[in-house]
Amino acid sequence: MAEAIGAQSIQFSQPPYILSSASVVGTKEGEGPLGELFDVVGADDKFGEESWEEAESTLQKEAATLAFGKADLAKEDVRYIFGGDLLGQNIATTFGLMELGIPLFGLYGACSTAGEALILASMAVAGGYADNVLAVTSSHFASAEKQFRFPLEYANQRPLSSTWTVTGSGAFVLGAKRGNVRVAGATPGKAVDYGVKDSMNMGAAMAPAACDTIYRNLVDFGRKPEDYDKIVTGDLGTVGREILLGLLKEKGFDISDVHMDCGIEIYDSKEQNTNAGGSGCGCSAVTLSAAILPKLEHGAYRRVLFVPTGALLSTVSFNEGQSVPGIAHGVVLEYAGE
Amino acid sequence: MAEAIGAQSIQFSQPPYILSSASVVGTKEGEGPLGELFDVVGADDKFGEESWEEAESTLQKEAATLAFGKADLAKEDVRYIFGGDLLGQNIATTFGLMELGIPLFGLYGACSTAGEALILASMAVAGGYADNVLAVTSSHFASAEKQFRFPLEYANQRPLSSTWTVTGSGAFVLGAKRGNVRVAGATPGKAVDYGVKDSMNMGAAMAPAACDTIYRNLVDFGRKPEDYDKIVTGDLGTVGREILLGLLKEKGFDISDVHMDCGIEIYDSKEQNTNAGGSGCGCSAVTLSAAILPKLEHGAYRRVLFVPTGALLSTVSFNEGQSVPGIAHGVVLEYAGE
Repeated sequence: MAEAIGAQSIQFSQPPYILSSASVVGTKEGEGPLGELFDVVGADDKFGEESWEEAESTLQKEAATLAFGKADLAKEDVRYIFGGDLLGQNIATTFGLMELGIPLFGLYGACSTAGEALILASMAVAGGYADNVLAVTSSHFASAEKQFRFPLEYANQRPLSSTWTVTGSGAFVLGAKRGNVRVAGATPGKAVDYGVKDSMNMGAAMAPAACDTIYRNLVDFGRKPEDYDKIVTGDLGTVGREILLGLLKEKGFDISDVHMDCGIEIYDSKEQNTNAGGSGCGCSAVTLSAAILPKLEHGAYRRVLFVPTGALLSTVSFNEGQSVPGIAHGVVLEYAGE
Repeated sequence: MAEAIGAQSIQFSQPPYILSSASVVGTKEGEGPLGELFDVVGADDKFGEESWEEAESTLQKEAATLAFGKADLAKEDVRYIFGGDLLGQNIATTFGLMELGIPLFGLYGACSTAGEALILASMAVAGGYADNVLAVTSSHFASAEKQFRFPLEYANQRPLSSTWTVTGSGAFVLGAKRGNVRVAGATPGKAVDYGVKDSMNMGAAMAPAACDTIYRNLVDFGRKPEDYDKIVTGDLGTVGREILLGLLKEKGFDISDVHMDCGIEIYDSKEQNTNAGGSGCGCSAVTLSAAILPKLEHGAYRRVLFVPTGALLSTVSFNEGQSVPGIAHGVVLEYAGE
């Protein structure tokens, strides 16, 4: 266990680097506070396709292709893909990436998939299994509403605790070649169930899992919150953020000064009517690519704990009266440009 | 890339070992040709639960617990779980394994998930990230029919090319400690689409992916089919087997002497009315645990290529007119008892 640290974390003795990343988003994300930072903002949310699912596949394909180009790599140079999305049977990923012809590890971590993919991609590079790999994930507002809640045509009202699924895909090329940002370590997360049964309040379902992973990361690495420039959760939103800060305080850690939530950053919730904030696999992925990695690239951030959060919501288990467990995977990112 | 070999394979310089495994199956599997080999055959297919999905969760929990016991490990000794199932949002896995409190990498590889889980679990151990990990997967006839085809209550007729989803879970503890079976290498597979649009003929959808992975394994390792005692596909069934043998012959490899398909082995298709054979994540997993690993344990087999096959079927993409791509992940298992 040369690479293991503490009860459940990993510390890479030869850290892999994030060689490039790309973000492709929909119109609403383009109009939000981070709009100008994204690589591509689609002209319409169908991205030229016939269905929402195909549109989401196109998001992934474009993000992957763009990331390959930025890293100056051909698809033949990328040995494995670690990818997933929110849809049943990962169809956005499969249909989006199939024509690349790269071996695929399909993942399902709900909205924590960006973290799961980055961890496994890092393990693959650091373990000597591959020179370059791709971590990619996506979500799409319309395909997610259809899958999990109500078709858009119903025009359902949304409670204030609800979040808005981000239309977007973030892709990351990880490699052994030295870059400016390294994946120094990771804290894979447990599924945690606090008994939340409200599919319109995913922030509350995910906050306990985020707390568990962040707490474990701090303990395993022997760190205080201020050892991170930012502790970035995926898509807790305003409701989930308050719960997380409270839960961590009970465990002796005050992260309020360094906490940031991608779901809160990506929209102007008042102007854009997104209630508690953004959510979805794509939310944390595109925010990492567009708003966080650039600051790590140039040393404005020296060390960030990136913790995408997932609500393991399924219409089947939900309709059978089950609660919605949460899961969160932590990734330690460091400036390596010196 | 010290651990990489050929275009897409992995050769472990310090191979992990399969320390234990367990198989838990339903009544029909218990009545089949392998019936006496399984660890547990449920008295009824609900396994004491209220719903088919909860029954499938219980299958996983029992298989995992049994495998821990056989390896003489407490759950605290197992650092990570690599698991998945066929259901949307992996609910069988999440709800089945949550109370173990072990960090979870959720996977989706359709019926190839046993292979995907074994590969990632092996990479985790061989890379020094963990001493012991669990790879686990499951399927359940009733939950799968509800998810993918028709509720059982409809009593739909089934065409001869259809397969029967296995009710079962296979769990595998992998570790660094020396055992009698090692994971010597792996060939992660690509999603391959031959344009099959018949959800009742999954064998045809998966055979091209199996061909691609087996071909690539033989080329990457510089082997001939007879270098393996068995090349074991997951759930092609009789229809898919014929297609696979033909496709590989076109590429210059005749594997007919060493080929075995778990879907063909697990049922007496005439007596048990299972048409083309068994299928599902559980099919290859329980057959590996109950019928293949014991032969590797004692050297009756010296080297086996285990290739679970998955059909990336989704009702959403299928109803939108998309084809069913296949994927297959190859795992090289060797007798290490000398």
